[in-house]
Amino acid sequence: MEIVTCKAPVNIAAIKYWGKRDETLILPLNDSISVTINTNFMRAKTTIAASPHFKNDRIWLNGREEDFTNPRLMACVNESKYRQHSNIKSMQGNAIIIEKAANWKIHIASENNFPTAAGLASSAAGYACLVYALSRLMGIDGDLSSIARKGSGSACRSMHGGFVMWKMGKEKDGSDSVAEQIAPSSHWKEMRMLILIVNGCKKTIGSSAGMERSVKTSDFLKNFQLDQRVSALRKAILNKDFVTFAEITMKDSNRLHSICLDTYPPIQYLNDTSHYIIQLVHFLNDHFGKPKVAYSYDAGPNACLFLLEENVSLVLSLVNHYLPPLLAETNTVESSYFKGYKVEGGLERSPPPPDVLKAIPLTPLAPGALKGIIYVDVGDGPQILGKEEHLLDDNGLPITS
Amino acid sequence: MEIVTCKAPVNIAAIKYWGKRDETLILPLNDSISVTINTNFMRAKTTIAASPHFKNDRIWLNGREEDFTNPRLMACVNESKYRQHSNIKSMQGNAIIIEKAANWKIHIASENNFPTAAGLASSAAGYACLVYALSRLMGIDGDLSSIARKGSGSACRSMHGGFVMWKMGKEKDGSDSVAEQIAPSSHWKEMRMLILIVNGCKKTIGSSAGMERSVKTSDFLKNFQLDQRVSALRKAILNKDFVTFAEITMKDSNRLHSICLDTYPPIQYLNDTSHYIIQLVHFLNDHFGKPKVAYSYDAGPNACLFLLEENVSLVLSLVNHYLPPLLAETNTVESSYFKGYKVEGGLERSPPPPDVLKAIPLTPLAPGALKGIIYVDVGDGPQILGKEEHLLDDNGLPITS
Repeated sequence: MEIVTCKAPVNIAAIKYWGKRDETLILPLNDSISVTINTNFMRAKTTIAASPHFKNDRIWLNGREEDFTNPRLMACVNESKYRQHSNIKSMQGNAIIIEKAANWKIHIASENNFPTAAGLASSAAGYACLVYALSRLMGIDGDLSSIARKGSGSACRSMHGGFVMWKMGKEKDGSDSVAEQIAPSSHWKEMRMLILIVNGCKKTIGSSAGMERSVKTSDFLKNFQLDQRVSALRKAILNKDFVTFAEITMKDSNRLHSICLDTYPPIQYLNDTSHYIIQLVHFLNDHFGKPKVAYSYDAGPNACLFLLEENVSLVLSLVNHYLPPLLAETNTVESSYFKGYKVEGGLERSPPPPDVLKAIPLTPLAPGALKGIIYVDVGDGPQILGKEEHLLDDNGLPITS
Repeated sequence: MEIVTCKAPVNIAAIKYWGKRDETLILPLNDSISVTINTNFMRAKTTIAASPHFKNDRIWLNGREEDFTNPRLMACVNESKYRQHSNIKSMQGNAIIIEKAANWKIHIASENNFPTAAGLASSAAGYACLVYALSRLMGIDGDLSSIARKGSGSACRSMHGGFVMWKMGKEKDGSDSVAEQIAPSSHWKEMRMLILIVNGCKKTIGSSAGMERSVKTSDFLKNFQLDQRVSALRKAILNKDFVTFAEITMKDSNRLHSICLDTYPPIQYLNDTSHYIIQLVHFLNDHFGKPKVAYSYDAGPNACLFLLEENVSLVLSLVNHYLPPLLAETNTVESSYFKGYKVEGGLERSPPPPDVLKAIPLTPLAPGALKGIIYVDVGDGPQILGKEEHLLDDNGLPITS
């Protein structure tokens, strides 16, 4: 039995992907740009085992067996096998062994350490991890992002660390629709993210179905030209220009949700709490005369706040003031409410500066509007993990913890 | 002392006005189409008195004295005086008396019988009423909508009954930006409106400031072409084609709020309850395979539902099921919760059909999401009222009731 375990990151788009020009190949209508989240606190983990003794291909997601015939899963597995086959042709030595192994059945186990299907790019991390693990198992070289793309469009961006651009490409076969790194995580060390998990109902329509409806019905989606915005954000990242980065990020988040409302029937991912956070951010930025923090929302109500490390304490104190947690959630030291990096001196609970409070004409929400806060930074792409991390045992069956 | 009292209607736009091409003349960026609400239950009422003995121009709104130097108020008064002067030139007989009266000071008292500044077109009814009363007092003929437009853009549509189109016009001086009747209220007798007053905070930005920000920052607003939509809705009204009317109305409401989100910083008038009503309407319409009801939202969270009389009982029963009132509000017969026409047999409280309930996958909201419901039909334009309706006494001062 061959076995490999990998982890892969979540990515948050600053310029959003919304709309496909090809549903099967998953080719997007526009370029998008994302920031890769450090896998320390948010990651997908996937173990793949291959054996001549396995009778069927099987998959377990978060401990539960799922149907292997999921067309997106199949697309990634089949594309990986096709690439392996091409590789083998140009190989010497152990090509025969690998070719044999290509016909073995595989067992996959995958899990996320953060909520799935809550607009937190869980499928992006999941498919990136799947494709990376397949590539390690099968010995596939070259661009992997175009394989991951077939699982979930935005998964291709999780194949790289740091700041990543998914080029829409022009070819009909999608061969040039790949993700590339703009800059590694080390390029802009000061960049931080606060992920605010908003309490609310689960979403009414998934992002794939949502964007398909938008492509069919939204005039706004049809007419919007993104090229200038993409090149401006790319430049802002290379120059570490936070003000421009923040403004474009907020505008592009708004563009996505504006398209959703212009879709027929309309789609609504943001709720009252999401909009309250948007207001809070603008009041805060207005007070300082320039953006200190930027919001970004995907297909769900949770906010991702981008900010520089020097402003984390300030912003966190304001978030805690205006969107206070339920008391019970912060009473214990080992609170599950605050995740990710610790802020020095427990600043999560220190009061915000009076002059800033005075400048923000908002009434704090009732406690419990947020489910939790995750404090993270920019990280690297997928990696192989040691055997102590395997999710499958020696028989290729899930290890129950 | 000369005195006159008038009433004027609210109008609800099915194709929205959002964005001016001239801020001073109040010239819109696009044509808009509205339905005039019957003044039986929602109306502005204005009394204007003119006297050689008044020392100053004065105005009382809803019983409270306000500043007469409001530029929009002044624009309407001055434009009326200018028109009067032009009229006099072509008059015989009592021209001298009228000319003298034109220099008298005026007292104005105005009140609405519905909440102001809640996205219920209160300023439209108010300015329409002001201009109509001025015209009766001053003996002004010809198009009045272009005077009302200078008070509040959408006020020009309240100068006519039934179904009304405000043509954007092309002239720089705004002379062709006038409202015209598409069809009188008698043309489509079956049309009804249910106005759902949504509980929520007051709006964070008024519609004038909001649309100005949209014009400056929204790409969507810049690029959208409305011509086809306008002519299709006009045709639907003339053909009494509810299905087309409903679909265009909903799409155009969504367009407005989509533009608001695409504005920077973004503007949010809809809240979670508004979005819940949107979902409810789409589920209901999907169940029947065609629109039975259409929603429309202006610069606030309140919904205006358009529907035919035959569907009022059904829709009202669903609204009461999914957005139930607080018990206390319906316990009394003289409930202030239900306003407007009575539904036969008190159907407000009858349960909705089980098959429809089954088709709608929504959980009812907690009681109290709505403040009230107003059931109205289409009505006529401004009218003169008898002297028993005067809001000013013989001295030209407000009558305190």
